[in-house]
Amino acid sequence: MKFIVDTLGSDEGVKMAVEGTVDSYRKHGFDIVFVGPKEEILSYLPDDLKGVEIIDTKEYIHNDEHPVMAIRKKKNASIVLGLHRLNDDDVDGLVSAGSTGALLSGGYFITKRIDGIERGCLGALLPNKLGGTVLVDTGANMDTTPEILRQFAVMGSVYMEHVIGRENPRVALLNVGEEPTKGDKRAQETYQLLADSPLHFIGNIEGRSMLSEDADVIVADGFVGNVALKTIEGVAKLLLGEIKSGVYSSTKHKLGGMLLKDVFANIKENYNYKSRGGAPLLGVKKPVFKAHGNSDAEAFSMAVSEMYEYAGAGVEKKIAEKIAQLHADDAKQ
Amino acid sequence: MKFIVDTLGSDEGVKMAVEGTVDSYRKHGFDIVFVGPKEEILSYLPDDLKGVEIIDTKEYIHNDEHPVMAIRKKKNASIVLGLHRLNDDDVDGLVSAGSTGALLSGGYFITKRIDGIERGCLGALLPNKLGGTVLVDTGANMDTTPEILRQFAVMGSVYMEHVIGRENPRVALLNVGEEPTKGDKRAQETYQLLADSPLHFIGNIEGRSMLSEDADVIVADGFVGNVALKTIEGVAKLLLGEIKSGVYSSTKHKLGGMLLKDVFANIKENYNYKSRGGAPLLGVKKPVFKAHGNSDAEAFSMAVSEMYEYAGAGVEKKIAEKIAQLHADDAKQ
Repeated sequence: MKFIVDTLGSDEGVKMAVEGTVDSYRKHGFDIVFVGPKEEILSYLPDDLKGVEIIDTKEYIHNDEHPVMAIRKKKNASIVLGLHRLNDDDVDGLVSAGSTGALLSGGYFITKRIDGIERGCLGALLPNKLGGTVLVDTGANMDTTPEILRQFAVMGSVYMEHVIGRENPRVALLNVGEEPTKGDKRAQETYQLLADSPLHFIGNIEGRSMLSEDADVIVADGFVGNVALKTIEGVAKLLLGEIKSGVYSSTKHKLGGMLLKDVFANIKENYNYKSRGGAPLLGVKKPVFKAHGNSDAEAFSMAVSEMYEYAGAGVEKKIAEKIAQLHADDAKQ
Repeated sequence: MKFIVDTLGSDEGVKMAVEGTVDSYRKHGFDIVFVGPKEEILSYLPDDLKGVEIIDTKEYIHNDEHPVMAIRKKKNASIVLGLHRLNDDDVDGLVSAGSTGALLSGGYFITKRIDGIERGCLGALLPNKLGGTVLVDTGANMDTTPEILRQFAVMGSVYMEHVIGRENPRVALLNVGEEPTKGDKRAQETYQLLADSPLHFIGNIEGRSMLSEDADVIVADGFVGNVALKTIEGVAKLLLGEIKSGVYSSTKHKLGGMLLKDVFANIKENYNYKSRGGAPLLGVKKPVFKAHGNSDAEAFSMAVSEMYEYAGAGVEKKIAEKIAQLHADDAKQ
């Protein structure tokens, strides 16, 4: 397998991307194509990797640029060059910690959508005791329709089954109550579409169960999913931060903190919203993977390893099959 | 002041409502009108309160009934009788821990909306170090428009200024990013409406800052607000529960827990999503207050005391003035 690594546009710079990639390479062994400033990349590479393919560029798309415009105009932006290279047959995936908007737009206009898919979605794996629940979408697409949300459900389901290895994944719709009639119009219509689909739909799920083991796939419009994901991040960070500052506030508390060290470590490990290095852009023709914008080398290494597993699962073909089947079923009715 | 207390429809039954009301009465002193089963209510009342007005009924609206239909059909349901009594001049507010849907529908059809208000909203005070941020709406209305969200912003702002005592409250829009162009169509249009309004609008706020001190009013559609509120509840409960079970898992951990007892107690007090007894239904002509469905006597007492402060603030008149002013400004442009 051969992966493209976009080294530009992240908060932490080129070095962490190169080091993270090398770290993941040592574990899995794959071919690498770096995109970014060639000399700088070479300066961070160990001797045995100085011969890798490097697409040399210093240009990249910033977070505050209009992504669609930037993708069209900045022909030498790292993500544009990288996604064009991804269209070649010898390459199996791309990972980037740069602008999410640029990655999404590039995924649409350069990698292209899978046949039958209206919109793509970012699938973030939320931590829980069962090994995770995928939230689709976490912000790639807003103003979605029930049909688009049904497609998110299909993609999330394929991801959980073929990448995470969850059999017959339980799909739930993020909503304000359990009854089918709850929610806004979109949620009510989506409920019916999902109930009538061949997916393993288990009904609505409320915000308070986001980190429960009640569902394997949580379906949401990108606006709602993004707010929910960031709310989880915010509350977890705040509470753990408050505990930390409480522990450091006195000698007695420090002793208490020492005695509870493994309890806190366990919780941090089990419910760390950064326990994953990134999230796949589901719905495009080849594996495109978003690493956290503020990744360090360790997080980026995780993202590359996740991409390795994701690309190996052949999710695109399975999504195409399921969507074709769904549309064939629709036509029959 | 005289308040109506609906004793029916909560999870915990009539007793907690009566006891909670009596507890709040001992603190503030006000006249009470109970609605519910007269004999049962009398059996829980102390001697000095056995003479209070009681509207005798055993009927109430269940959580799984269609609220609008139920409000129309069940003429003797406690909330229907209570809201009709609220229309009398000698009564200043109503509190209920029964069906939220019934309270909202009843507020609309019996209490009626303030002139110019399109939809009401439930304003929950989120905990933070500054003494709270009101989230409007937490689930009263979905499928809202930018104009409706602007009205929520006005109502939240009046609430924070006149009930909580926050000067010139900072209003933020719950969104997926900071830039004005972020979010779905509704969020983008709402941003412009708020930016052009006389409110102290400070821009977008993301899910991760729900419990920060960055805003005094957070504006959201009821669907998004409800998901966010319940996500906060869920994550906080989960993390604190995990710490608790960790503390109880061994003698060493128990000792650590004892040493950190006041740290945990502080966090629980500062970030308890149940630190408030309930939330007002903003936008109706008289004070209507929703207590948590699973209130115990202590929580219900808090709700009654919050209603006491809320009703005393005369929020309805101020909302009417602000909305009239807003519409006058609109007409000028």
